[in-house]
This record gives sequence, C-alpha cells and structure tokens, in this order.
Amino acid sequence: MLSDVLLVSAPGKVILHGEHAVVHGKVALAVALNLRTFLQLQPHSSGKVSLNLPNIGIKRAWDVARLQLLDMSFLEQGDPTVPILEKLEKLKEVADFPEDCTDHERLAVLAFLYLYLCICRKQRWTAEDLELINKWAFQGEKVIHGNPSGVDNAVSTWGGALRYQQGKISSLKRPPALKILLINTKVPRSTKALVLNVRNRLLKFPKIVAPLLTSINAISLECERVLEEMATAVPAPEHYLALECYRRHGLKSPASGRPNGNRLSLLLQELIDMNQHHLNALGVGHTSLDQLCQVTMAHGLHSKLTGAGGGGCGITLLRPDLTGPEVEAVKQALTGCGFDCWETSIGAPGVSVHTAASLDAPVWQALDGLCAGQWASSS
Amino acid sequence: MLSDVLLVSAPGKVILHGEHAVVHGKVALAVALNLRTFLQLQPHSSGKVSLNLPNIGIKRAWDVARLQLLDMSFLEQGDPTVPILEKLEKLKEVADFPEDCTDHERLAVLAFLYLYLCICRKQRWTAEDLELINKWAFQGEKVIHGNPSGVDNAVSTWGGALRYQQGKISSLKRPPALKILLINTKVPRSTKALVLNVRNRLLKFPKIVAPLLTSINAISLECERVLEEMATAVPAPEHYLALECYRRHGLKSPASGRPNGNRLSLLLQELIDMNQHHLNALGVGHTSLDQLCQVTMAHGLHSKLTGAGGGGCGITLLRPDLTGPEVEAVKQALTGCGFDCWETSIGAPGVSVHTAASLDAPVWQALDGLCAGQWASSS
Repeated sequence: MLSDVLLVSAPGKVILHGEHAVVHGKVALAVALNLRTFLQLQPHSSGKVSLNLPNIGIKRAWDVARLQLLDMSFLEQGDPTVPILEKLEKLKEVADFPEDCTDHERLAVLAFLYLYLCICRKQRWTAEDLELINKWAFQGEKVIHGNPSGVDNAVSTWGGALRYQQGKISSLKRPPALKILLINTKVPRSTKALVLNVRNRLLKFPKIVAPLLTSINAISLECERVLEEMATAVPAPEHYLALECYRRHGLKSPASGRPNGNRLSLLLQELIDMNQHHLNALGVGHTSLDQLCQVTMAHGLHSKLTGAGGGGCGITLLRPDLTGPEVEAVKQALTGCGFDCWETSIGAPGVSVHTAASLDAPVWQALDGLCAGQWASSS
Repeated sequence: MLSDVLLVSAPGKVILHGEHAVVHGKVALAVALNLRTFLQLQPHSSGKVSLNLPNIGIKRAWDVARLQLLDMSFLEQGDPTVPILEKLEKLKEVADFPEDCTDHERLAVLAFLYLYLCICRKQRWTAEDLELINKWAFQGEKVIHGNPSGVDNAVSTWGGALRYQQGKISSLKRPPALKILLINTKVPRSTKALVLNVRNRLLKFPKIVAPLLTSINAISLECERVLEEMATAVPAPEHYLALECYRRHGLKSPASGRPNGNRLSLLLQELIDMNQHHLNALGVGHTSLDQLCQVTMAHGLHSKLTGAGGGGCGITLLRPDLTGPEVEAVKQALTGCGFDCWETSIGAPGVSVHTAASLDAPVWQALDGLCAGQWASSS
C-alpha cells in the first residue's frame, strides 16, 4: 500500500501517417498527444478499494477483505502476454456488475480490476519503471481492445513519436512538439469494416493499390526524417508567411534550400495533403472529412484523417506563425460544422509523475473533487 | 477543285486516364468525344476562297487569283513533319490580318491557310485516306499548339479510344460508346505550369510520387481492360441500382462475379475516383474540381478532372440506368455552380462524311447559314 498521494498522467495518441498501410506491413508513425489522462492514487482507511472515473460516470467500491477471500489463483495461470479471455470471464463475477451497466463501463471496470488485482498480488508496483508500466498498460489494452498492436500503450508510456512496422516499435530521437487541432467529426464508423474494405480493394486492384501503399510508406518515412531534422532546425516563424505566399503563387521560394523550421513545416503540410488524398483513394474517406479539410484549408491549414477514417477523427497542423485569433477562428468554423475540436500538441511527454503545484488550475480542480476515492482518474 | 458539297465531321477528345503520368512515360487513354466539329466544303464561282468559322466569329475571304500570284515556294521547303515556324511567319503576310485580330483568331486562320495552300499545291486531297487526314491534322496541331503529342489528331481521325505511351499510339479494339458529361469549370490554368509542378514534386518526393505514377499507370491499363471487356458484355441496366445499393452499404454484391455491363460500369467509377484522388495528390487539383466532384457525387455520379487540371475541364460518367430527368438534375446543379456542361458520349466515331439527311436538325440549321462560303466549319 502507498503512504502518500501519487498523481500521474499519460498522453493520448494519434496516428500521424501510415494508418491502414500498417496493416499491410508498411511503416506507421504514432505520436503522443498532449490530451492527458490523469490518475490520482490515494491510500484510504475505509477498508475499501474505490474507483472513480468521472468522465465516463463510474463510481464503484469493493471491500478489500472480501476480495482477499475470493480465489484469485486464476490470475496467475498462463503467460501474462497471451489473451486473457478466460480470466476476464471469472473477473466479471468479482466485479459484480449492476444490470444497467453499459459495455463501455464494464470494460473500464474490468481493465481496472485486472490491473489492480494482478499488481497487488505480485507486489511489483514501481511507478518509475516505464517498461513495467508499458507491460501493464498493454494488459489493459488486451482487456478493452482484444487484439491491440501495442502502439497505443507504448506511445502513452514513452510519449514523443514512435515508428511501428510489422510488430517492431522504435522511438524517434527528440521529436519536436507540434501544435495541432484534434477534430472529432462525430461520424461513427467501424474500424474493422474499413480495414476489410482496404484489403478487398487491394485484392481487387493489386497493381493500383500496392504502389499506393508503397507511396504511403514513403510518406511515413519522409515524415520521420522531417521530424528528426526539425529537432536540429532553428524555427523562424517570421519568415513563414512569406514562404506560404511564394508557395501559393507556385514560385520557388528563395529560402527553400535553407534547413529551417519553416521549410520543414511546409514539408509536413505537403505530406499531410498527399496522405489524405491517398487515404481517399483507399476508400476510407468520408464527406465529413472532406468538409473538415475544406474548412481548415479556407484558413490556410492542412488536415488529414487520423486512424480508421470513414468519419472519426482528423488532425490539423497549426503552424508556429499562427496567432491566437487565427486559431480561434478555425476552431469556431469547425465547431460550426458540428465537430468537436481540441487545441493540443503532439510529441507530448509520456507517463509522468506530477506535484500539485505543477498542474494547471482546471486539472487540479477536476482532481480536487475526487479525494474520497482511493483510485481516481480524470482526463 | 471539288464539284459537290462535301460535309465531314470529326470528334473532340478527352483524356480518360493517364494525364500528367504520360509525361513520365506512363500509359494514357484518350477517347473520342462526340462533340463534333463539322466542316462543309463547297465549290464557289466568286473566284474567292472563303473561311467561315461562326463559333469563333471568323469570316474571311481571299482572292484565289491573288494567292496564285504570290510566291508560295517556301511551303515546299524542308520536311513537312518538322516545326514550321518560319513558314508561318511568311504566311502571316498572306493572311493580311486586321489590327484588331486576336491571337485566337490568327491561329485558326493560319492553320486553315497552311492546310489549304499545302493541300491545293500538292493536289493530294483524298477524303477517305485517314492516314493522310491524320497527317494534315497533325500539321494543323503544330501550327496551333507548337509541340503536340499527336494524340489529339489521331483520336479525331480514328475515333474510339487510343492508348498512348512514350510516343506510341495504338487503337483499342471495339471500345464501347459511354455517355458522359463534359464540364468546363471555366477556371483558367497553365498546362505548362501544372506539368512543371508535377515534375518538381517528383524530384522533391521521388519515393512518394514515383509509386503514385505507377498506380496511375495501372489505372489506365485496368480501364483499357474494362473497356475491351465491355465490348463483349451484355448490359443489364435494370440491375444497376441494386448493385449500387449493395456497394453503398459495403456489401459484396451477389452479381459481382458476373461479367456484365453493370459490374464493368462500377469498375469504371472506382477507377475514376481513385485517379481523381491521385491527381489531387500530384497537386493538380482545384477547389472548382472538388466542387464538381461533390455536386455530381450528391447525384450518385463519379467524376474526375481531364487534361491538365488546376481548373479546366472534368468528366462525369453517366451510367446507362440514368433517366432523362436525373441527367437534367445534375446538369442544372452543375450550371448552377457557374460551370458549362455538355451531355455527350465518348468512344465516338472518327472523321466521317455525312449526307444532309443523316444530320440532326440543329447541326443542319447551323450549317445552313454558311452556304456562301467555299469552306465552312461549325462545331
């Protein structure tokens, strides 16, 4: 048991390039998104373990003494890295779900109980051990997702940007933090059906689609190269608008040979545009995503879908030269379309321990109401 | 000199697939468009050769006796297949242009005078000889275009559909006649600048753009295959809507294994969509073309740019199952955007001789006013 309050956070994730192509052995770039999930761990004398997940409306408590009476030996059976479906079936009895509990809530509670019981049982809790955290986070992913790639937990653990290809995950050295908008079109879609559609298109038109996947792979690799070059580039936002002006008139920029942040930002925009067209050619676009791209392009900003497509989410690169009112204007235009819109950054730090003083007021206020729980989470 | 009225027509042309990629050695498909230019040749006793091009407002006449007095020996100098810039400079004196004559008018008159004088001089006029017609048409192209590929005159001469790759032109066997809309966005663009932009993008991102061109090449080849299969397929328009319904819901159509016209029309639509996205990824799209695609897609129809892009023209495939009112609705929507729109067909016959009885009333009416001219043309 812990003697003090422990406050940690971990970032969300978006795919920068390589969605769908990754299914066919190509490179994907995943980046940590600075929309963070906060977790507050706090010891309590009530004899209960409490879970409070205010964002999805879950507040549950279990009697620790009762949990200790139950036979939990099934948790130790088998390899922890193989699917744990049978263990989860038995855990459902422990969880004791009320009848009106949604699937969404059940999965969140199961993931918590599985991690809590395994970690307590094994007495191996070490907050600083990223490898261990990543391993447990992967177990949580298995509970909720079923067949996760391991990218999501890895990005949330290590932060920054990761390259993923055929099961191999590696971190980019010093990826830059880039401002973006994350936009939810709120159009529901089935990732499974979209992945299947791409596979069918590849089978139907192999000579058309295979080179397209090769082109997407090259976009991911070029983006990786640009991100690594950005780490050493000197940003010069005041030159940016001039460069954009040259570009719009189809002229060769006088600065186009200079390895600075502006040239690199323009490259990132070109890669975003090309990949968005490629994803459309794969058949995973959607009119809502077209609208998203058009609305941001009307403000001179470049966007692509992120993830499965067919609706879902998109990202918009916010160039360093943009003013606050300019960003507000595009956000208003997007919310005017009925989209949800968050201004955030990618290349964010991974799982982090916080002191209360280091937190922004809104985060602290959100956490403040949760002190009654032994475990609490707020995103 | 001819003793009777001769009435001939030749089709226009659109690129079905392969624009831009063709510059980089890939296959392009050019198809004859049934928007025809009519030419009426008529002997006259006025001692004048008259040219009447009502569509571009040209009505000129030259005294044949005066032309015979001029030294035209320069026309015989050199190879007729090499550029004829010097000859054209001398021809401008013969043409005797008024000061307010536009470049557009000058080029049309020069092309006419060059062909008229060369053909009269060589006494080789044979209307049935397609090879000869194609050769002279190519000379006209050289006058107007400067560095033509030879595709335009070949399509207008032979009609149907042609495959072009690295200077080699071959006709498709029995291409089907397909109904389309030809849409002019009326957004002006420079073909030269757009071709240069694609070349620069290929140099900048070789590993991204080269596979994209390979994919476009595969689209042209697949389209060629589909067009040839269509010639032997039995069309069954009444099944089309059901197939479209299956497709929209992402279901495998029960008829998708049947080699019929509907399955082939769906394939053509998919190829059109993929190529339009590819052309966008090459950077030759335009917001006007996006609008064109969206407007036709709202009516369930698939479109792509044709030619250089960056504005200019687009084509929309009209499926065989469409009713007259449905076609009218999409045409109205397009003209509502400020576009010009023609309902026509591709795979049209090449250069043809007509009898008056075989012509539609509007064509005949347009030609009827031109009997005063010895040569007359109307599109």
